[in-house]
Amino acid sequence: MNTARFAERREKLRALMHEKQLDALFISHEANRFYLSGFELHDPQKNESSGYLIICADGRDWLCTDSRYKDAAARLWDVDRVFIYTSRSASEMNGLMRKLRLGKIGFEAKSLSVSFFELLSEDLSMERADGLVEKLRAIKEPEEVERMRRSCALNHRLMQAVPSFCCPGRTEAAVAWDIEKFFRENGASGLAFDSIVAVGPNAALPHAIPGADVITENCPVLIDVGCRVDDYCSDQTRTIWVGDRPTPEFSQTMAQVRAAQDAAIRVIRPGMKVSDVYACARKVFEEAGVAQFFTHSLGHGVGLETHEAPGVSPRVEVELKPGMIITVEPGLYYPEWGGIRWEYMVLVTEDGAEVL
Amino acid sequence: MNTARFAERREKLRALMHEKQLDALFISHEANRFYLSGFELHDPQKNESSGYLIICADGRDWLCTDSRYKDAAARLWDVDRVFIYTSRSASEMNGLMRKLRLGKIGFEAKSLSVSFFELLSEDLSMERADGLVEKLRAIKEPEEVERMRRSCALNHRLMQAVPSFCCPGRTEAAVAWDIEKFFRENGASGLAFDSIVAVGPNAALPHAIPGADVITENCPVLIDVGCRVDDYCSDQTRTIWVGDRPTPEFSQTMAQVRAAQDAAIRVIRPGMKVSDVYACARKVFEEAGVAQFFTHSLGHGVGLETHEAPGVSPRVEVELKPGMIITVEPGLYYPEWGGIRWEYMVLVTEDGAEVL
Repeated sequence: MNTARFAERREKLRALMHEKQLDALFISHEANRFYLSGFELHDPQKNESSGYLIICADGRDWLCTDSRYKDAAARLWDVDRVFIYTSRSASEMNGLMRKLRLGKIGFEAKSLSVSFFELLSEDLSMERADGLVEKLRAIKEPEEVERMRRSCALNHRLMQAVPSFCCPGRTEAAVAWDIEKFFRENGASGLAFDSIVAVGPNAALPHAIPGADVITENCPVLIDVGCRVDDYCSDQTRTIWVGDRPTPEFSQTMAQVRAAQDAAIRVIRPGMKVSDVYACARKVFEEAGVAQFFTHSLGHGVGLETHEAPGVSPRVEVELKPGMIITVEPGLYYPEWGGIRWEYMVLVTEDGAEVL
Repeated sequence: MNTARFAERREKLRALMHEKQLDALFISHEANRFYLSGFELHDPQKNESSGYLIICADGRDWLCTDSRYKDAAARLWDVDRVFIYTSRSASEMNGLMRKLRLGKIGFEAKSLSVSFFELLSEDLSMERADGLVEKLRAIKEPEEVERMRRSCALNHRLMQAVPSFCCPGRTEAAVAWDIEKFFRENGASGLAFDSIVAVGPNAALPHAIPGADVITENCPVLIDVGCRVDDYCSDQTRTIWVGDRPTPEFSQTMAQVRAAQDAAIRVIRPGMKVSDVYACARKVFEEAGVAQFFTHSLGHGVGLETHEAPGVSPRVEVELKPGMIITVEPGLYYPEWGGIRWEYMVLVTEDGAEVL
C-alpha cells in the first residue's frame, strides 16, 4: 500500500475532526494507527504498542515511537515530525503537545489506561473522541476488499482441509494446532483470533476453548477460525458431523441455521439497518419455535481487527453502506448435544450483497 | 494448584490493603487475577479479559465474569459470590460495588481504560493502587519455582535444537516458526513473547522482528525466545555463529558479554539492590571501554508474565529477596556487524543465586 493512501485517510479524518471542533486527535488504538500511517501493525490481539499518532487540524501530523522503531518510522513519515520517546512516553508526548500549543485534543478513551492518560493530559484540554477512525474503517476501500478476499480465500482452503483433521480419537487442541499450522504454512502471518474447535456438547458454548476432549465417531464438531493475510482478518465458522450419518436433531438444526443465514443475506443491501438484518434471521428461528436457542448477535464488521464496527445486533441502528464487510453467523445451541453455527463474510455492494 | 493456595495469596494481599487503608481492591490485570484466583489465564500477551476480582477487607471476595465462564467460575469460587455481567460490565460492577457499600476501593490504573473506569467508578470512592499484587508475585512460591524450572528446561532443550534450524539460506521468519513449532509440540501452551531471530546487522536491534533476511555462511544469529509451560514463562537469549570460525570482533564481544554476565550473577544475593547488580555488569563493560554499546537494562523479573517486577536497571532500588527470579541479559550492539546478548534466568536463593 502506498503512503498516499494513508494521507488520504488522514484528510478524511480531519473532516470528522472538524465537525467535532477538534484541533488535534491523539491516536492510541493500534489498528487505527496502522490504518492512518501504515506504521508497524503488531497482532492487535496483543498488548504491544509501538507508537501513537497526533493528527492535527493544520495537517502537520506527528508519529511518536521509541528508538527501536526509528528507522521504520523514517521510511513512512517526514522525519521532522517523528517524535522519539523514552520509557517516560506519556509525559514526553504531553510536553510535545504543550509545545505545539494545541487547543482541544480528542483522545480514544477505550485504548488509553487511566495512568497513561493522567500523565498525557496534564495541563491540556483533552476530551473523549472514540470511534472516529472506526467509522472510516467500516467502509473498505477497493484494495482493502482485495486483501480481505485473499484472507477469506485461505480460510476457505483451510475449511476444505478441516474434515481430514477431525478424525475420531483426536483432541480439540490437536485439531486447533493443525489449523494454526495450516494457516501459517500457507501464507497467513498468524491467527485472526484464538481458534474454536468444539466437540459435542462443547459446541453449545459460543466461545469454547479447545481442550483435551476427544472427537468420537458420530459427533458434531464446531470450527470457528480466522487468519490474518496482508494485515486483514478472516472469520468463518462451519459445523461438521463426524461419522456416517447425522442425527435428526443435527440435520434439522442445520437446516434452520442455514435458512436463517440465507434469509439475512438476502435482505442485505445499502440503506438497510443492521438491526433489521438481525431481526430477519431471528424471525426464521421464531417461526421454527427455536429463537430462545439463538443466544448471541448475528455478526460484526471485520477488517484489520476481527471484531470492528458495525456490530450486527438488535441494538445497533447503523445503516449498511457499500464497502462494509460483515459476518453473518446465526447459531443454535443445545447443552445436551452441542450446537450449530455457520458463518459467512459478506460484502455490502452497490445494490445488494456478495458472500466472500 | 489447589484453591487453598489462592486463598492464602488473597490473605497476604489483604495485609497490604490494610496498610493502605483500602476496604476493597478491584483487580483488572489478567495475570494478577489468575494469581489470586486461578481463574482462566489467557495468554496475557493478548487483549482478552475474562473477568475481574473484587477483593474485600472483610474476606468476602467476588469473582466477576460473563456467562461464557459461569461453569469455570463455579469450579473455583463460592457461587454466591460469582457475579455474572452482560456487555455493560463496567456499569454492572459499579452497581455491585455500590450495593456492597464498600468504602475506599483501590484499582489498578495501568490496566483499566479511561472509558471503563469512568463507568466503573461513578459515585464510588476509588483510588489508584497499582503494584500491590505485583509485589507478592515477585517472590515465587516453591511450586511456582518448580513450574519455572519446567518452562526453563524446555527452553534449554529448544536452544540445543536451534543450531540445526539455523542453516545458511533460511530466513529469520522460517527459523522463528521452527522455534514456535518446537515449543508447541513439546509441551508449551504457547510462546511467552514474540520470538526474536536476528541475523547479522539485525542483531544490533534489541527488539528485531524476524523477517525475510537470510542466514549466510559466517554470520551471527541472535535468538531471544521464551515459552509458557504450566502457565509460567521462560526467557532465554543466545547468540550463535553460523559458519566455520567467528570473527575476532565476535569472539571478543562474546567474551566481554559473558564476563559481564558472570560478574553480575556472582553478586546476586538477598539484600543486594538490583541497581547494584546492573552497575556490576556495566563496570565490566566500562573497564573494556565498550559501555556505550550496552544500551538497555540488565534484566527483569519473570513469572506469569515475561516482564514483571522487579526491573533490573540503574533506576530501580528494590532489594533482592529469596524466591525472586530475574533475567540477567547483558548485550553489546554494533550496527555495522550485529550484536551479542546472552541471557540466563536466575533464582535468588537464601544465600546467593542459582542459574535455572
